[in-house]
Amino acid sequence: MDNSFGHLLRVTTFGESHGPAVGCVVDGCPPRLPLPIDAIQRELDRRRPGQSRIVTQRKEADTVEILSGVLDGQTLGTPIAMLVRNTDQRSHDYAAVETAYRPSHADYTYDAKFGIRAIAGGGRASARETIGRVAAGAVARAILGAAVELVAWVDEVEDLVATVDGGSVTVDDVERNIVRCPDEAAAAAMLARIEAARKDGDSLGGTIRCVARGVPAGLGAPVFDKLDAELAKAMLSLPAVKGFEIGSGFAGARMRGSTHNDAFVKEDGRIRTRTNHSGGVQGGISNGETIAIRVAFKPTATIMRPQETVDRDGNAVTLAPKGRHDPCVLPRAVPIVEAMVALVLADHLLRQRAIGG
Amino acid sequence: MDNSFGHLLRVTTFGESHGPAVGCVVDGCPPRLPLPIDAIQRELDRRRPGQSRIVTQRKEADTVEILSGVLDGQTLGTPIAMLVRNTDQRSHDYAAVETAYRPSHADYTYDAKFGIRAIAGGGRASARETIGRVAAGAVARAILGAAVELVAWVDEVEDLVATVDGGSVTVDDVERNIVRCPDEAAAAAMLARIEAARKDGDSLGGTIRCVARGVPAGLGAPVFDKLDAELAKAMLSLPAVKGFEIGSGFAGARMRGSTHNDAFVKEDGRIRTRTNHSGGVQGGISNGETIAIRVAFKPTATIMRPQETVDRDGNAVTLAPKGRHDPCVLPRAVPIVEAMVALVLADHLLRQRAIGG
Amino acid sequence: MDNSFGHLLRVTTFGESHGPAVGCVVDGCPPRLPLPIDAIQRELDRRRPGQSRIVTQRKEADTVEILSGVLDGQTLGTPIAMLVRNTDQRSHDYAAVETAYRPSHADYTYDAKFGIRAIAGGGRASARETIGRVAAGAVARAILGAAVELVAWVDEVEDLVATVDGGSVTVDDVERNIVRCPDEAAAAAMLARIEAARKDGDSLGGTIRCVARGVPAGLGAPVFDKLDAELAKAMLSLPAVKGFEIGSGFAGARMRGSTHNDAFVKEDGRIRTRTNHSGGVQGGISNGETIAIRVAFKPTATIMRPQETVDRDGNAVTLAPKGRHDPCVLPRAVPIVEAMVALVLADHLLRQRAIGG
Amino acid sequence: MDNSFGHLLRVTTFGESHGPAVGCVVDGCPPRLPLPIDAIQRELDRRRPGQSRIVTQRKEADTVEILSGVLDGQTLGTPIAMLVRNTDQRSHDYAAVETAYRPSHADYTYDAKFGIRAIAGGGRASARETIGRVAAGAVARAILGAAVELVAWVDEVEDLVATVDGGSVTVDDVERNIVRCPDEAAAAAMLARIEAARKDGDSLGGTIRCVARGVPAGLGAPVFDKLDAELAKAMLSLPAVKGFEIGSGFAGARMRGSTHNDAFVKEDGRIRTRTNHSGGVQGGISNGETIAIRVAFKPTATIMRPQETVDRDGNAVTLAPKGRHDPCVLPRAVPIVEAMVALVLADHLLRQRAIGG
Repeated sequence: MDNSFGHLLRVTTFGESHGPAVGCVVDGCPPRLPLPIDAIQRELDRRRPGQSRIVTQRKEADTVEILSGVLDGQTLGTPIAMLVRNTDQRSHDYAAVETAYRPSHADYTYDAKFGIRAIAGGGRASARETIGRVAAGAVARAILGAAVELVAWVDEVEDLVATVDGGSVTVDDVERNIVRCPDEAAAAAMLARIEAARKDGDSLGGTIRCVARGVPAGLGAPVFDKLDAELAKAMLSLPAVKGFEIGSGFAGARMRGSTHNDAFVKEDGRIRTRTNHSGGVQGGISNGETIAIRVAFKPTATIMRPQETVDRDGNAVTLAPKGRHDPCVLPRAVPIVEAMVALVLADHLLRQRAIGG
Repeated sequence: MDNSFGHLLRVTTFGESHGPAVGCVVDGCPPRLPLPIDAIQRELDRRRPGQSRIVTQRKEADTVEILSGVLDGQTLGTPIAMLVRNTDQRSHDYAAVETAYRPSHADYTYDAKFGIRAIAGGGRASARETIGRVAAGAVARAILGAAVELVAWVDEVEDLVATVDGGSVTVDDVERNIVRCPDEAAAAAMLARIEAARKDGDSLGGTIRCVARGVPAGLGAPVFDKLDAELAKAMLSLPAVKGFEIGSGFAGARMRGSTHNDAFVKEDGRIRTRTNHSGGVQGGISNGETIAIRVAFKPTATIMRPQETVDRDGNAVTLAPKGRHDPCVLPRAVPIVEAMVALVLADHLLRQRAIGG
Repeated sequence: MDNSFGHLLRVTTFGESHGPAVGCVVDGCPPRLPLPIDAIQRELDRRRPGQSRIVTQRKEADTVEILSGVLDGQTLGTPIAMLVRNTDQRSHDYAAVETAYRPSHADYTYDAKFGIRAIAGGGRASARETIGRVAAGAVARAILGAAVELVAWVDEVEDLVATVDGGSVTVDDVERNIVRCPDEAAAAAMLARIEAARKDGDSLGGTIRCVARGVPAGLGAPVFDKLDAELAKAMLSLPAVKGFEIGSGFAGARMRGSTHNDAFVKEDGRIRTRTNHSGGVQGGISNGETIAIRVAFKPTATIMRPQETVDRDGNAVTLAPKGRHDPCVLPRAVPIVEAMVALVLADHLLRQRAIGG
Repeated sequence: MDNSFGHLLRVTTFGESHGPAVGCVVDGCPPRLPLPIDAIQRELDRRRPGQSRIVTQRKEADTVEILSGVLDGQTLGTPIAMLVRNTDQRSHDYAAVETAYRPSHADYTYDAKFGIRAIAGGGRASARETIGRVAAGAVARAILGAAVELVAWVDEVEDLVATVDGGSVTVDDVERNIVRCPDEAAAAAMLARIEAARKDGDSLGGTIRCVARGVPAGLGAPVFDKLDAELAKAMLSLPAVKGFEIGSGFAGARMRGSTHNDAFVKEDGRIRTRTNHSGGVQGGISNGETIAIRVAFKPTATIMRPQETVDRDGNAVTLAPKGRHDPCVLPRAVPIVEAMVALVLADHLLRQRAIGG
């Protein structure tokens, strides 16, 4: 269960960073949907290491193989298993880590939980685990169809803030630069900042925004499985995420009801809201407006500086910088955020169909 | 499933605001735990309407009845069903609402989802649903035991920010005033602000912080069911919540790795971290440090002012203020936040036991 | 989880025999279905103690109260909680049992599992638990609608075997006598046998058959959640059940493929099978033919004879006969079997809708 | 969900008969258990095609690859993904089947459910799906440990019945002949019968018995997830299974309570039952006695004779015999039955640990 997500559309990921492979099984996908392997590979390419000079230079083609559930580019309604082989494992890079706990990594907590861990490459805690999520997200998109438009982008790097219109921004806008920030001026500044941080052996955090346009009203659930609750879980389940907001978020906490309330109006023959402080979800259920979330990522834990820490026995040790890493994970996290949002929405679309919606 | 939460410790809530009753069934509670009904009632009293002059004046004793699963104050290991009767339903207050959609309430989305709704009192979307959560939270506390100390408090009301030491604050500190803010000076200002807003017919939002001290290292899961992911879902599943942070949260997104990383040290014979930007969770698993979260609540949607909206057919209508409400939900939300955190932790405690932890 | 059943239509039952109440919560029921309380009560009356001279004489009206999820006889799409108070508890009857383990009851295994148990009335192991199932079954029937016709009946009592045409038998036929066997001659013999056994202080077992007619083709799942697998679980989850068959069952194991295979034919414009050894399910999925199952019930464990056993400490004791019981549980089990079949079918109907079926 | 089984130990299988691969992901396995790949391969070899002259001659080595979750022969506590490539696919054998529905196969029902299917080799409905179960079963055995002894055997082929002592029979006894019947005389007769049936182009059914010795008392659950209910589901989820019994089974339905009840006695310092009509489970919970079940398999649907059927459009067609098959599936089903029993027991062992058992 720990490694599965979703109720009707259910993805299970597997794999360690330096094991033979990573991948996923997606269960519950309806039959007879077109699912070209290119659509999956395209998303994986967006999260691939080595795609640009600001991301980790680990060499992985991340070529996906579909093992089951798809025939002649169409889903069968049976589990879709997808596999990506790990090829560029430099396990020797991790020798020093063997006994030392890297600060703000999962080394210590894995030991606390399991009493054993695959040390090389961070094992299961590696960002390579998200390959399975991205592949599964492509399945979710096939379920959602073209009417639902998902766009995520890097909104902040450190204190650099982009200005982006969530109502109109497109994936093409986002893909125009390697930072994945559709505000070109901000993107340039972010790029410079990331490169400077890398040279400095340091790392940066930031925020990603994601919008979902065209989501029909009625998705979600009234109580525990609120659409925003599931989105929050989806986001916090990603490595390095420390915060989540929907709609007005924390800023909304400082507004008054008379200003915050989204007045209903009739527009173009359907009921809409004049403002969207709700972020497209009210009472846990989509209202047909743009779903708008914001996600905080901490700075990458791996830095190219010596760090003080302890080993398994509690002895103080100094950890020498080693290995490959992203000085700022946000550019590669964009397709992962979209994939998780797609999984939540597709699951709830199926759930809504089940009760006749 | 929509109305259930937890994997091994599983609570299902039921009930509409103006139906006969609200309550819950808690499945998966281990046997032979002391569970005095007083412990449950005490938590319910903390969230009860009418408990102070700044909360809704709906008259409900909210007396809990245990229907099953407990014998002579001890759990049996069988489902614990708990019931609270609704008594003070003024359904006539809701006549005007019948066709009009209250802004930023769940009226419209329930109709979009279900095509039917219990209009009086907000039906299932009422905060009365949280009675079942608070009762279930008392069961979760019995599982966690005295070693785990949970304290939530009102940290901000609008732009008034309290100064509280999360390392030492106690529930008694919190309960000292009706705002449930342990910073007495801030509490006084918040109280004044809330009363002013009420007189003004308006409503306020704010933030709640919650800490869990004494949580053993090793709780949580590496991937989707990360401890922080489950906490995020738990919080966003609460009415009016728009944001969630753990540890450094959104502020952490502006820090650098060299500053944000929590160095490991050995203290008092055990491995600890010097700082706690991680908020007690690393890689989705507790590390034994204080778990620290922050939750944003929007201002109450119900305000005592006329509001423009539309009815079911899209006709513009003006909604006259009516009904009872909390001008600021935060003081009553404190025990609810604690209950949800308790449910997440207790579930993961049982899950960890299953794998031998 | 232990006390829940179903994936999209999910029932959780609660309650001990001599606790305050028994009941259930049904989550996942679609909205806007007519659900008159009479339909629920009628099914409960069929399983009620004291309904005839051959069943236990415990005096319970078993009047159901709907606590939530239904408004003006229509489902809301929210959890339907239903409650039946226990009224005729004679706990003193159970004093002797307190330390002695009744043979072939759950006394010993509850102690082994929980280290505690509600002794009076068998606690959670009492057949009163099935009240929640029967109430939930009435909800399931509302989902299935009139097109699906469920009929269960007593087919064997000890070695008395009825002759019944599963293709045409109706619930009215079944309800015509208190044994619930639609073969009147067999019913008379069974009645005499049951009364003789009761006078003899002994108990009887037998088999129940159940057919579901009008189930659309396509319900079920290919692998673990096969429709017949779920039916088997549903049946074995009932007290006293020791065996399950679908279609040809154990007799089919002695047939050859050339005889057992159900040839497909076109009839009345649709594809059917000439024979139905499959029992309406092929590869785990319904084929549109009559679903036909058979369930074995052991003789009631409670008998009116002294029995040798041991107490909690292993000391040999003789258990004196005491309490009220059914000398043969089958007549009252008929509506319970139907309820469980309805729950399985309704759950899979919703699941099939989710994938577009 | 359809393709997953278990609550804490959860296996998800994937794969079509003529797709690239079949396999499984096992989530929830505790860490630090020895899991040599040989132990997995050994079980797969027991179910492999081509292992003897009485099983299908499809040529598959069925060599397992562990993709994740195991390091240096030890489990990590993370998902264990296992893969077996399909190599000997003769899809041309299935050309005739493309439009014709094979009697008593899942062709028609897959079309009814999904509107699409992988025709070659039966796709997902192929017995190759059970490879994932057998591999997962080896993980379950690692959890159960050596104290729990599982033995299944072929008990009946058509009307030939073996005489076997379930209290002492071992896997070695079973593996002594290719029929997997430890009664050598019966095995010889069965072998002759199977070969005669094959020559006759026909197929045979039969029953398998399975015992689990050394299961601690206390496993299972009181209501829906009764241990016997889960075993019943596990068995009926296997291809070709039509019936399930535990303990006295259908024969028990003809016994009287005075005879059927298992008297408790103290033996060797622990509480036992004198007889075991309960089959090791009382009230859904194991009582420490040998768990004993019996499973009915119908004759293989594939026969080497022309069969009348219809095609997708309902046109009558005669299906010519073609393809490879087992004239009697029982010998190869033995390790599959054991695997499923192991999965049920291991899941409940973990569940019991969670509540402190």
